[in-house]
Amino acid sequence: MDNYPSKILENAVNELAKLPGIGKKTALRLALYLLRQDPAEVEAFGTAIIKLRNEILYCKICHNISDEEICPICSSPKRNAAIVCVVENIRDVMAIENTGQFQGVYHVLGGIISPVEGIGPDQLTIDKLVNRVREGTIREIILALPTTIEGDTTNFYLYKKIKEFPVKMTAIARGISIGDELEYTDEVTLGRSILNRTPYETLLPGR
Amino acid sequence: MDNYPSKILENAVNELAKLPGIGKKTALRLALYLLRQDPAEVEAFGTAIIKLRNEILYCKICHNISDEEICPICSSPKRNAAIVCVVENIRDVMAIENTGQFQGVYHVLGGIISPVEGIGPDQLTIDKLVNRVREGTIREIILALPTTIEGDTTNFYLYKKIKEFPVKMTAIARGISIGDELEYTDEVTLGRSILNRTPYETLLPGR
Repeated sequence: MDNYPSKILENAVNELAKLPGIGKKTALRLALYLLRQDPAEVEAFGTAIIKLRNEILYCKICHNISDEEICPICSSPKRNAAIVCVVENIRDVMAIENTGQFQGVYHVLGGIISPVEGIGPDQLTIDKLVNRVREGTIREIILALPTTIEGDTTNFYLYKKIKEFPVKMTAIARGISIGDELEYTDEVTLGRSILNRTPYETLLPGR
Repeated sequence: MDNYPSKILENAVNELAKLPGIGKKTALRLALYLLRQDPAEVEAFGTAIIKLRNEILYCKICHNISDEEICPICSSPKRNAAIVCVVENIRDVMAIENTGQFQGVYHVLGGIISPVEGIGPDQLTIDKLVNRVREGTIREIILALPTTIEGDTTNFYLYKKIKEFPVKMTAIARGISIGDELEYTDEVTLGRSILNRTPYETLLPGR
């Protein structure tokens, strides 16, 4: 498809096709869809995208996306600022928030250490985390990075930086997903779920 | 996913999720991708979309998308304005143009007659086509609408409207795709390909 009847259409298709996972054919379909919509709707669409890039802020404490200088989680009096969950990115924050199980706060690293992709500790918000720890209000750091070599490397790097401070370091539990069957679980997860077994009493209802 | 840390992000995700085939999760992924891009790039993206809706024109002759009042195909002296190919939409024009086999011009109906979807002849550019025929320069109308009940209905409607004029009406050939095997071809296509068989001589090279 390269015989566009209009430069304006071609330009819009090329812009849409820059989005990840969207090829030229899908981009054309989207462009023709937008052409059929109300002009005010399309204006709102384009403006929302431009506003997203130009106006969004990053929380000065946890580096989560925010509309204010301090994000709603960090500024909430209901959250326990002594417990900090360290995550790779914003989507991880949203995933944990959706569980409704966590009352602490976050620290968004903005990535994990990956020599292959050229990401070193300096490109992440690790120093900022160490500064937060240095301030003395944090009692526990929960590591929630991916279980990959890069995740493990980053965990260990953080451990070395933070071990001098009187802060408990934990990692989120890895195990078999609720509802999953043992025979279909990979050995590493199954092995770990045995090593990290939980006292049964803590699982009883009412506790 | 509904705990957005930012209203601006939530708004952008909702706008992206209005696009056909894009759900909330994909929209979030796209929004976070856009957040990582250069502000000028994102501005160009948003502007291209708004411009698409506000500035694109439809050719006054064939109703194809155009940047000018008359599209490049209709205004080209190389095209044969006596042969008009009638198509449902703009993508059909692009598909035929990509073959490089057609030297005539087009007429874009903007849809086909569909009582189920509430599309009647008045919502299409059928009257405009009849006016073009009435002007007297058109010698042949090639029907290239879909082979559905709606397509057949539209073809017959056009036939009734145009048969009083001295214009030849043809339809594009339907048959087995080049390279396809007979045993995997549906009966209707196979049956039609026998009824509409082509003199072998016309297929010889050099003709």
